[in-house]
This record gives sequence, C-alpha cells and structure tokens, in this order.
Amino acid sequence: MIAQYELHLPAFRRGFHLITRLITEKIGKLPESGLLNLFVHHTSAGLMINENADHSVRVDLESSFDKLAPERMPYYTHTLEGDDDMPAHIKSSLSGVSLTIPIANHRLKLGTWQGIYLCEYRNHGGNRKLTLTVMG
Amino acid sequence: MIAQYELHLPAFRRGFHLITRLITEKIGKLPESGLLNLFVHHTSAGLMINENADHSVRVDLESSFDKLAPERMPYYTHTLEGDDDMPAHIKSSLSGVSLTIPIANHRLKLGTWQGIYLCEYRNHGGNRKLTLTVMG
Amino acid sequence: MIAQYELHLPAFRRGFHLITRLITEKIGKLPESGLLNLFVHHTSAGLMINENADHSVRVDLESSFDKLAPERMPYYTHTLEGDDDMPAHIKSSLSGVSLTIPIANHRLKLGTWQGIYLCEYRNHGGNRKLTLTVMG
Repeated sequence: MIAQYELHLPAFRRGFHLITRLITEKIGKLPESGLLNLFVHHTSAGLMINENADHSVRVDLESSFDKLAPERMPYYTHTLEGDDDMPAHIKSSLSGVSLTIPIANHRLKLGTWQGIYLCEYRNHGGNRKLTLTVMG
Repeated sequence: MIAQYELHLPAFRRGFHLITRLITEKIGKLPESGLLNLFVHHTSAGLMINENADHSVRVDLESSFDKLAPERMPYYTHTLEGDDDMPAHIKSSLSGVSLTIPIANHRLKLGTWQGIYLCEYRNHGGNRKLTLTVMG
Repeated sequence: MIAQYELHLPAFRRGFHLITRLITEKIGKLPESGLLNLFVHHTSAGLMINENADHSVRVDLESSFDKLAPERMPYYTHTLEGDDDMPAHIKSSLSGVSLTIPIANHRLKLGTWQGIYLCEYRNHGGNRKLTLTVMG
C-alpha cells in the first residue's frame, strides 16, 4: 500500500521546530510495517532528526548552523534576496530536505530521544509544504 | 511495482550540476504515486536538492563547501590521491549520496525551485554512475 | 515484500566504523530488486556511506567532523552531558541517521569503494540500535 499526504505548516520563526506530532496526526493509521518518507518542497528549509526533549539542543544547533553557513561572506554572489538567503541554501544542503523513517507495529519507529524537526533557515520563510509518503 | 535504471553521467567539471532532466528522461513513465530513490556509486561525489533557477546559488555552494572542507589541512593523512581527494570524501559525507523523492500524479513531486544536483567534488572525477529505483 | 530487522551493535569507540558486513549478515537473503533503509535510533550517532578501503579516510573524517563541530564553544548552552555531547548532536545532523540503498540482483548495490559507516560521535556511546527495512 502507498498513501500520500500534504502537510502545510504555518510560518515558523527561524530555527529548529519539533513537528513529530503534526506529522503523526496528519497521517493517522499507519500500516503494520514499512517506511515513511518526508519531503519538504523548499530550498531554504530542511528536515532533521534530533533530540526531542531538551530545548537547548535546538538553540545550539541554530548557533552552530549559523557558524557553518555565516551571513555576508565576501565571496557570496547570490545576495539579492537578503543576507539570510544564501546561508539558508547552504544549511538546507547540510540537513537535507528528505527523511526516511521505519514504521513498525503501526507506529513510527523513532528512538526514545528522537524527534522530527522542521528547520526554518530564513528569517521570514512563511508557510512550508511537506509531502508525506507511506509505503507499507 | 519496482523499476530500476542505471544512469551513466558524462564527466562534469568540479561543481554542482543540475541533472533533473537527465533523470526524468531516463526513467520515462512514472507510477501514479510512490517514491524515487537516487543513489550515486562513488565516495567523492554526492547528490543534493537545491535551487534550480539562479546559477549563482551553485557558485556559492561550491565556495562554501570549499570552506567547510578545505584542501591541504595539516592534519590530513589521506593525501596520496591529490589535494582534492580528502575534501571530496568530506563533502560527500555532508551532502550524502542518496536521495528519496516523492512521486505524485505520475511526476516527480519537487518544489517549484527545487532541482536535483550531481555534486562533483573532484577536479577530474570522470564518469559517474547512478542507480534510480522507482517504487510505486 | 517488506522485511524488518533490528541490529544491535556493540559499543564502538568514538570514530567511523565499517559495518557493511554486519548489515548484510543480519539480513541474509535479499529480494531481486528494491531498497534497503537503515535507521539508527540515536541523536549522537549517525550513518554514512564512504570509502571502504583506506583506513586513513576514516581518520581524516573524524578530524574534519571535530573541526566542523568543535567542543566547548562559548555559545553552547547544552553542556550538562559532557563536552562531547552537543558536538555529537551537530555531527549527527550533518551525516544524518537514515540511509536508503538500492538492492539489485539480490545484493546491496554499493559502488566498488563504498562502505556503510556507523558514526559514533560520543566518547562512550555504548550499544547502538539500528532498524533495517527491506522493501522489494
């Protein structure tokens, strides 16, 4: 079986945001086993799996991604869309825009401390669209 | 249904290259819905989804990956295959070598600005082989 | 067909470790074609495909990931679990925790030089759990 859903996320502020519950609520019943693919349809956002409990991890991931892809580097040529735009493309290339997660016993099989993040890399990214594909 | 294709890319120069059309032409008809997995069979190249319109993004991604994985670091021990080799392995680990993309309405469901890149991290990488797997 | 396996890895020291053989031995017979998804259930470890022959690549990847995500940065706020903890979360976000690999002719279709790494980012990460999902 294949099932596919579109998830339209509200505008999030720049940073890393837990969306595990939004995803499981959107999909509803999962097959006994299989895979879930998540895909975000933007080039200045990303998806990531990381710590779901301690908020400080998300804070430090944001600082660290800002160091890995700083704003206003003198060698940037793609500068017309704002200081946060080219760094957002770079960050998106580091986290990726697609995640595949196992399904077992009709549930997403995440580790105890794993949550799914929407990575909003722009200052004002607006709404973001995801496609969720279940194969089971 | 499962369908699998091998795509042999010509030698590209070092940098990021849009290959969306080469992939869709290779596959031909897609199922109504499902997933496409792309996999590049090399450790000094990668695959990435990013901006498909403004060429300057690809230029800046190359500069930025060169900063993230510089050549001739004094702590490199893997140096026999040239200055560009160890950085290519690092860059490949950052972008990854595998992408999974949703299929909907018999088409690859990419965002408006999303294209598929072959990331050529070597100066003279030569031909590159991809496997394309459709599950629908 | 869908088949799913849990692979419990012994404690590895911090670094990059080839686990291709452990994975293929765990799964046994593969379908004629399809996909294998690997998923590690932790936020301070990762999965990566890279060079399977020359050990020096794994040594330099470790040095390079240590530069990309250094310890004891003054802006870290997530510090209670040790100097290696927040860098481990960052590294996990760079390599990712999920890999999808094509299956062809009843075998994992990896390139000649490609191996699967368990990336252990903690000093004492202990046992690590993977889920292997075969769709064919």
